[in-house]
Amino acid sequence: MSVARPSGRASDQLRAVSIERGYTRHAPGSVLVSFGDTRVLCTASIEERGPAWKKDGGWVTAEYGMLPGATHTRGRREAAQGKQSGRTQEIQRLIGRSLRACVDLSALGTATITVDCDVLQADGGTRTASITGAYVALVDAVASLRKRGVLKRDPLFGQVAAVSVGIYRGEPVLDLDYAEDSDCECDMNVVMNEAGQFIEVQGTAEGHAFRREELDALLDLASGGIRELIEAQRSALAG
Amino acid sequence: MSVARPSGRASDQLRAVSIERGYTRHAPGSVLVSFGDTRVLCTASIEERGPAWKKDGGWVTAEYGMLPGATHTRGRREAAQGKQSGRTQEIQRLIGRSLRACVDLSALGTATITVDCDVLQADGGTRTASITGAYVALVDAVASLRKRGVLKRDPLFGQVAAVSVGIYRGEPVLDLDYAEDSDCECDMNVVMNEAGQFIEVQGTAEGHAFRREELDALLDLASGGIRELIEAQRSALAG
Amino acid sequence: MSVARPSGRASDQLRAVSIERGYTRHAPGSVLVSFGDTRVLCTASIEERGPAWKKDGGWVTAEYGMLPGATHTRGRREAAQGKQSGRTQEIQRLIGRSLRACVDLSALGTATITVDCDVLQADGGTRTASITGAYVALVDAVASLRKRGVLKRDPLFGQVAAVSVGIYRGEPVLDLDYAEDSDCECDMNVVMNEAGQFIEVQGTAEGHAFRREELDALLDLASGGIRELIEAQRSALAG
Amino acid sequence: MSVARPSGRASDQLRAVSIERGYTRHAPGSVLVSFGDTRVLCTASIEERGPAWKKDGGWVTAEYGMLPGATHTRGRREAAQGKQSGRTQEIQRLIGRSLRACVDLSALGTATITVDCDVLQADGGTRTASITGAYVALVDAVASLRKRGVLKRDPLFGQVAAVSVGIYRGEPVLDLDYAEDSDCECDMNVVMNEAGQFIEVQGTAEGHAFRREELDALLDLASGGIRELIEAQRSALAG
Amino acid sequence: MSVARPSGRASDQLRAVSIERGYTRHAPGSVLVSFGDTRVLCTASIEERGPAWKKDGGWVTAEYGMLPGATHTRGRREAAQGKQSGRTQEIQRLIGRSLRACVDLSALGTATITVDCDVLQADGGTRTASITGAYVALVDAVASLRKRGVLKRDPLFGQVAAVSVGIYRGEPVLDLDYAEDSDCECDMNVVMNEAGQFIEVQGTAEGHAFRREELDALLDLASGGIRELIEAQRSALAG
Amino acid sequence: MSVARPSGRASDQLRAVSIERGYTRHAPGSVLVSFGDTRVLCTASIEERGPAWKKDGGWVTAEYGMLPGATHTRGRREAAQGKQSGRTQEIQRLIGRSLRACVDLSALGTATITVDCDVLQADGGTRTASITGAYVALVDAVASLRKRGVLKRDPLFGQVAAVSVGIYRGEPVLDLDYAEDSDCECDMNVVMNEAGQFIEVQGTAEGHAFRREELDALLDLASGGIRELIEAQRSALAG
Repeated sequence: MSVARPSGRASDQLRAVSIERGYTRHAPGSVLVSFGDTRVLCTASIEERGPAWKKDGGWVTAEYGMLPGATHTRGRREAAQGKQSGRTQEIQRLIGRSLRACVDLSALGTATITVDCDVLQADGGTRTASITGAYVALVDAVASLRKRGVLKRDPLFGQVAAVSVGIYRGEPVLDLDYAEDSDCECDMNVVMNEAGQFIEVQGTAEGHAFRREELDALLDLASGGIRELIEAQRSALAG
Repeated sequence: MSVARPSGRASDQLRAVSIERGYTRHAPGSVLVSFGDTRVLCTASIEERGPAWKKDGGWVTAEYGMLPGATHTRGRREAAQGKQSGRTQEIQRLIGRSLRACVDLSALGTATITVDCDVLQADGGTRTASITGAYVALVDAVASLRKRGVLKRDPLFGQVAAVSVGIYRGEPVLDLDYAEDSDCECDMNVVMNEAGQFIEVQGTAEGHAFRREELDALLDLASGGIRELIEAQRSALAG
Repeated sequence: MSVARPSGRASDQLRAVSIERGYTRHAPGSVLVSFGDTRVLCTASIEERGPAWKKDGGWVTAEYGMLPGATHTRGRREAAQGKQSGRTQEIQRLIGRSLRACVDLSALGTATITVDCDVLQADGGTRTASITGAYVALVDAVASLRKRGVLKRDPLFGQVAAVSVGIYRGEPVLDLDYAEDSDCECDMNVVMNEAGQFIEVQGTAEGHAFRREELDALLDLASGGIRELIEAQRSALAG
Repeated sequence: MSVARPSGRASDQLRAVSIERGYTRHAPGSVLVSFGDTRVLCTASIEERGPAWKKDGGWVTAEYGMLPGATHTRGRREAAQGKQSGRTQEIQRLIGRSLRACVDLSALGTATITVDCDVLQADGGTRTASITGAYVALVDAVASLRKRGVLKRDPLFGQVAAVSVGIYRGEPVLDLDYAEDSDCECDMNVVMNEAGQFIEVQGTAEGHAFRREELDALLDLASGGIRELIEAQRSALAG
Repeated sequence: MSVARPSGRASDQLRAVSIERGYTRHAPGSVLVSFGDTRVLCTASIEERGPAWKKDGGWVTAEYGMLPGATHTRGRREAAQGKQSGRTQEIQRLIGRSLRACVDLSALGTATITVDCDVLQADGGTRTASITGAYVALVDAVASLRKRGVLKRDPLFGQVAAVSVGIYRGEPVLDLDYAEDSDCECDMNVVMNEAGQFIEVQGTAEGHAFRREELDALLDLASGGIRELIEAQRSALAG
Repeated sequence: MSVARPSGRASDQLRAVSIERGYTRHAPGSVLVSFGDTRVLCTASIEERGPAWKKDGGWVTAEYGMLPGATHTRGRREAAQGKQSGRTQEIQRLIGRSLRACVDLSALGTATITVDCDVLQADGGTRTASITGAYVALVDAVASLRKRGVLKRDPLFGQVAAVSVGIYRGEPVLDLDYAEDSDCECDMNVVMNEAGQFIEVQGTAEGHAFRREELDALLDLASGGIRELIEAQRSALAG
């Protein structure tokens, strides 16, 4: 038995995913990632110095933003507000941690790579799309460092992607869009690597606390979705 | 086989937990909670109006702070810095969501209850201690509202507590202290209710991605720890 | 006689201009405008209330931002800095004034239209591209208001576009790209309407003060360029 | 003749004073000071470098905060407000100046000692309790520096304590609690050393300007109260 | 015996005082006050509404600023820094309290009078000059309200002036200039009314704690100086 | 034919201009400039180091402020607001650029000259009065550097002044005062040097777009006005 999703998708079906490299020209990594109608521009820039608070080795970090016009109702511009919201900070810290989980920072020399994830259009899942696209931008930035002969060995030792799962009208579903997300009893963002191991698990239930077997079902769905996303990243990088 | 924890505890053993109600006199709920050497003062205050952005019903929210002298090395005072860190915001949002998971806001009238969690002494697990103590302060604040005859029915429909778990030197352990936390491969904060259901699961692996069976073991440990914390809350409330 | 421009363009030649409507789906006006390699996303959003400081009638305003990865060297994110730079504020005030020069605010009812101009890729002339694209987004937003029957009469009474001119290696040239702009003795941004009248003229000479006849030549060049841009807007709107 | 004080105290009677050392474990000085129901946690931390603006010698400074739940009506958290109030800044500057009045900074080496005074419960006189407790925390921090052999000679050359006085219903009284303070015609905070000399005198009359003989009577009361506080500090330090 | 003051003044001698009314034209009260080389522009403005936090009655408040070029070494502009220093806030709170000590707020209707004290040139004693000049500006602003028939009775019931005193090379002196102030062992700002009563007494000793007889001598000096300033205000207001 | 200006001036007539040097004593350049009732205090201060972002050579910059009491209705103090408005930033950037247009920065050694323009009284044209006065303060500051033998050659290679022009009731007029400015269809600020060349041209038409011949007439008027201002600067500097 299966509940009807607003999009008509099967409960374990991702939205159409596209990963377009070289979307802008100045940043060494520039990726437009789409999970259905969610579109995020991920650019990876390189600075030839580590962060001030770190004695040696490089660093990988991320910043996140949502263009005011990306949502149904115009959002307020955080630069004009004078600060980033708690939500924005949570998301960009999550993206940064996720990327660092597949990088050997000591092999980065003294470079800092910053991946900016700016949401051009939002339809749910902006943080998971950001992580999935940011990884590809990071690979391209690292490649440009390697081409310049700056690095002695490859700092990337894994691959990372993310997807959301949640319980929609009583049924576990994969990759929630905005219509599902806003009507969802609980949802979880899962970040995994190419070996099927967990890097981050963030599940939240404001309305309906979830039982252990629900949690298990959600993790199963997420694992399947991430296998597909890992494959999509590989295709894009092979292109 | 078992790895030696710095504290000598068994892998599934909580630190000594104490929950002291009525610690200060002005706030209707005031609890000093200790998880070992971690001590957090949780005060629940009541304002007789809902938040500006909400048309009707009440609200429950939380704020978190760490006294500068609470840690080994003095932390910078956020009020003097002019802003709350991303970490602080993440934690206070987590506490607020966790508390709301056991409150029927529509039964709160138009009251806003704010639970302030201020860490007097930090030794790991300040956010899980905060949630566990904040729940008790919330119960006392709600009781004071009921005594005043403001509420028609009890807005509390559950009980909530939290604990951390992590993989320390290869072994899953419960309720990490600072010595373990700073040497830990991955850790997870788990918030559950009295029925053993999950309210929040936040697992992070910067160093070592965790396999599904590790995740399962951590969730089992957390469930056991939270059963004890739920009991400790009940004893304190019965006192 | 003519100096060689880095791009090989004639001195009175615009870069390739493209104006793509409906670039994103949520905002009633959404335009991706390109002046060569400069690409700006302009979205026009509608709020059904005038600004707080204004007793009656509607309002048209603009906000401007540059994505950190839009330039050769990553720019700092203004939201993270906690404020908009003086340059950003100057530009967004200019865009807003330029748009209002063709709008009868009293015919807007009580709506506020905000046009967000976010630079995805920068190669000189971001403010003139923004104005030129923002006008088209504004037209689409006004059309959506009219379709809803909210407005009694058309608030738009003119058309507005903008271009930069400057003296490059001694010769007046039209529509400077980054290579020219950074090597330019003085430059001027000109905003005009479809009747060839001036809405804004902003000329700056840090290196080389310009003589009256140079000023006249620059204004002539700008007038020609803007005639073409007005035409490009019409084609896009007819499309 | 004597007016009845709300607390039933004699006009020259202090509230019960307690000074508890070693209240928390991480800071080298940690004192919980109580003046009746006013309770302040004073922790003295050491950083092994002088302040940026000072070429040589050490520094002693203070920061002050009030926990949101410390007062009858919840106060707003200054960290969330994004700035410290004028009142907070005035108080922490006063505490810092008072402490420095008994320290030979040139004997501190290059250490900075910061004393954080955080009010857990407020019932009037938080700034005078802070100074009185902060001195004891400072002594403990200096002792820890001496134990480490960092200092050549004792930088402390005096002892400092503080008390408030005011005119309550026409009569000069010592050590005002909140009930008196909020109904007081004028009040004065007095900081003195162990030799009975004045370090700070801050008297304010919004309602009732005070005559010279009233000022004299207040200063007499303060001198007597501070002698007792100096004694209480000595007992605590001897303990 | 008397120590030589840098200015050659007697120990109880004020600097040349001048109070010029009507210095600018827009504010209803506008006074340029000089204490020797210290020059402060005090303007009193009226808004026809009480402050937001006050249910009824009017309000009198003050703001203080120092022009960057007012001192020997250029000071940083607080507006550019993004906040007012602790010193600025302390001073403007002091000015406001001092003025309110001679105003019956309930007779002010719902008007708020703000007195801005901006230091054009600083040579010590800017806060006492500010208070002395601000009082005169306040009188003129109240007179303009009375002329308009807005007030039923005179809200001013007293007169207020201020002066600094200190111990310079062992001797109590009146009205310190910058050369004395920067070489002074302790100093005190005294605000009094026309009846010789005290409104504020703020004495500070960082270097040299003062004995009771020194305090008495300083208060005597201040009383004499303020009598002269009260007279100077009267002359200016009679002019 | 000529429209009646509120002030009764001819359309090409400046207000009474006065330039008073040495207005305050601490800054090496200190000028009180008046354009009619607009009065601005311009002080030029010297710091013996270039700005942080510049490898070598000196720098000239400006800051602008308006005293709260300078206008008919009290303005809010930007230092208290916590930021400078977009208008303030635009103006101070304009003043800085204008001054730098007549300075050879490489001849300034490593000095930074900051010209502060603080408006004591506003009646229109504060930015053009600021530029005109700031130039004179800059000359005095440079002279003080030369007197100290710090500079090898004169860094000033030109003279700069500014005036506003606009179309008032259909007629081009020179040097708008507040009454004209607030009722003006379009206005332009023009900065020129002593050779009659343009340094900045900033024309804005919110209400009425201007035709090329109007623009030409405005530029003619401005040229005439600036010739007189250049002369007034010379007289002041010769004085």
